[in-house]
Amino acid sequence: MPPASDDSSAPDVGELTPPTRTLMGPGPSDVHPRVLRAMSTPLVGHLDPSFIEIMNDVQELLRYAFQTDNQWTIPVSGTGSASMEAAIGNVVEPGDTMLVPTNGYFGGRMASMARRAGGEVVEVDAPWGEPLDPATVSDALAEHDPDVFGFVHAETSTGVRQPNVPELTAAAHDHDALVITDTVTSLGGVELRVDEWDIDVAYSGPQKCLSCPPGASPLTLSDEAMEKVLSREEPSRSWYLDLSLLEGYWGDERAYHHTAPITNVYSIREALRLVAEEGIENRWARHRRLAGALKAGAEGMGLEMNPDDEYWLPSLNAVRVPEGIDDGEVCDELLERYDLEIAGGLGDLAGEIFRIGCMGYSASPENVTLLIAALADVLDDFGADVDPDGGVAACREALR
Amino acid sequence: MPPASDDSSAPDVGELTPPTRTLMGPGPSDVHPRVLRAMSTPLVGHLDPSFIEIMNDVQELLRYAFQTDNQWTIPVSGTGSASMEAAIGNVVEPGDTMLVPTNGYFGGRMASMARRAGGEVVEVDAPWGEPLDPATVSDALAEHDPDVFGFVHAETSTGVRQPNVPELTAAAHDHDALVITDTVTSLGGVELRVDEWDIDVAYSGPQKCLSCPPGASPLTLSDEAMEKVLSREEPSRSWYLDLSLLEGYWGDERAYHHTAPITNVYSIREALRLVAEEGIENRWARHRRLAGALKAGAEGMGLEMNPDDEYWLPSLNAVRVPEGIDDGEVCDELLERYDLEIAGGLGDLAGEIFRIGCMGYSASPENVTLLIAALADVLDDFGADVDPDGGVAACREALR
Repeated sequence: MPPASDDSSAPDVGELTPPTRTLMGPGPSDVHPRVLRAMSTPLVGHLDPSFIEIMNDVQELLRYAFQTDNQWTIPVSGTGSASMEAAIGNVVEPGDTMLVPTNGYFGGRMASMARRAGGEVVEVDAPWGEPLDPATVSDALAEHDPDVFGFVHAETSTGVRQPNVPELTAAAHDHDALVITDTVTSLGGVELRVDEWDIDVAYSGPQKCLSCPPGASPLTLSDEAMEKVLSREEPSRSWYLDLSLLEGYWGDERAYHHTAPITNVYSIREALRLVAEEGIENRWARHRRLAGALKAGAEGMGLEMNPDDEYWLPSLNAVRVPEGIDDGEVCDELLERYDLEIAGGLGDLAGEIFRIGCMGYSASPENVTLLIAALADVLDDFGADVDPDGGVAACREALR
Repeated sequence: MPPASDDSSAPDVGELTPPTRTLMGPGPSDVHPRVLRAMSTPLVGHLDPSFIEIMNDVQELLRYAFQTDNQWTIPVSGTGSASMEAAIGNVVEPGDTMLVPTNGYFGGRMASMARRAGGEVVEVDAPWGEPLDPATVSDALAEHDPDVFGFVHAETSTGVRQPNVPELTAAAHDHDALVITDTVTSLGGVELRVDEWDIDVAYSGPQKCLSCPPGASPLTLSDEAMEKVLSREEPSRSWYLDLSLLEGYWGDERAYHHTAPITNVYSIREALRLVAEEGIENRWARHRRLAGALKAGAEGMGLEMNPDDEYWLPSLNAVRVPEGIDDGEVCDELLERYDLEIAGGLGDLAGEIFRIGCMGYSASPENVTLLIAALADVLDDFGADVDPDGGVAACREALR
């Protein structure tokens, strides 16, 4: 025991006692107990021989989750935006042009990162809540001849899944553009085939369909993309996220660059083991099935999904807010009454949609059942024109 | 239970079973069981009202550890190099000049980050293994008139503690330069008084004297430094580390910027609670006392400390490698025989020193005793001219 402090200026802060939530928002999702347990494992050093084996395991498991053979597949030392900036900040060189979409919040973030990397930004348009149209993308590629084309596979801000990915990548490659894909809300939950779909660079976050606490974030680059990174004329503008330096640590040399977030590497290893145990296709099917029940429940109580069925995103369900209802009040009440987290809309869809996650360990019959029953209860209480019993029944039926 | 995978391409990776090490290298240090337990706490969302209270607690506790009243005191979402780049990349604007030291590895990293931020770099010289001389710093400030002066308070690569900090900051302020201080290996272990010493910006890592897993890293900025950041002509080159955007999340607004590494925030809160319970001055005294016993033990077996006593760094002990001994082989043997981690030298001191940490929870009588006994055993076995019994006796004596 350390001696008790005799320092009256020391803050008196109590034990950590956060409430127990059910996480059905846009992320983080509920974390599997095995992953939480991995996080309490005592540390080894980041250059320990045993840690190098753990790094190898994580790389192998990440390749499986991304469905890629890319050697360059690593967890970046930060949350999802760090792997996003590692992708854009390394691939986009000063003077490069990057084509980004306007159909959601994260296309805007891509633009901001590309500009900070010294790139020029051009846009391909689609409204918030709709996917990109391959023909429009082709036109934009022909018009702007970009070096890099970025798009979002699973838009967390709109609940839209981008279909026709192979068409988009083929169009980009016809114009010699490298493709960077945001897979933050799809990796490990929604069909994603990096190699088969010819995606050059994909980044993700761990706290969505992998159900892992944020802190180490998946990134994969093809040899061709990595060649561009390694032959840059000037170094990337971030030292921390410089992939040419990280190559020394994650590549064959295993030389010190920065201290890896050891515990976060432990946890993503365990989260990815759960993916491998379940099987990636089984996992995609589970998300479709459970989110399908959620969607059936929402529709069964009379709510409307914002996206068309064709580009519905199982991991993030954008449900339209009923007439006369304040989305923020509903979210607050669900948290208050049921310890249940969902979120409202962002940007162009602020106030118009609820964003309800169905990701990873949160994609379970019990969570989906609770969500539908609780949402029906609160909306009904707030005077919305919904059929609570119809919602619960439709959800139960879909789960059978 | 998820269905068992029928996917033969799924990697078959076993349970996480890292060896149990005693960490007495340059970091990470051993993590306190209470901090490990905090890491297995189920997550709340990063915008949950309860998380905002947790953020407030962390900020208050960090201010105490830094001994500052700076409002702008936060954990950066990444490991120590991320908080370092957040400091340099935001404060240094394109065209600014930054004065950096040459007396260790981390001054070189400062230079690289300042250049990537668009700054010019000038240097103030001192050999590896020695501190900066205030008179030389004053001359360099007069010669180069820099906008920013960076120095390392506790050089992890050389085991040197920079004395005379108030003299350095006063000299910099006489030339209207802002001072950025690397406190990675001092925060929470070695006397550090950000406000009293007039340091404008200090960054640190959690995995040294705070004994917290890496992943969320302390940073503090004075109002004056933050004013420079908020009045930049162009945005910082990193979106992820842009403090003007992070202000929205950590400031009064609590608006979404990126997903915070929730679990790492839990853990640093618990690690900082332990600092407050012990009292910061008691903690500094404990590090001096325990590292003093380690130093007595090393000297007692006939080894020599690399730095003079005047600038000895208790948290990182640079011990000279005896004649005819290979430092790497000793480190490997300690790991093999005792599960005990220490490290060799870097850069100009490669092969010349052992780097032995005595940090946070690792700064205990049992760890120090083990370290001295094990090091004496292995060096003696390797034929070094050491007195094992003299080392163990001197350490025991110092611990009484």
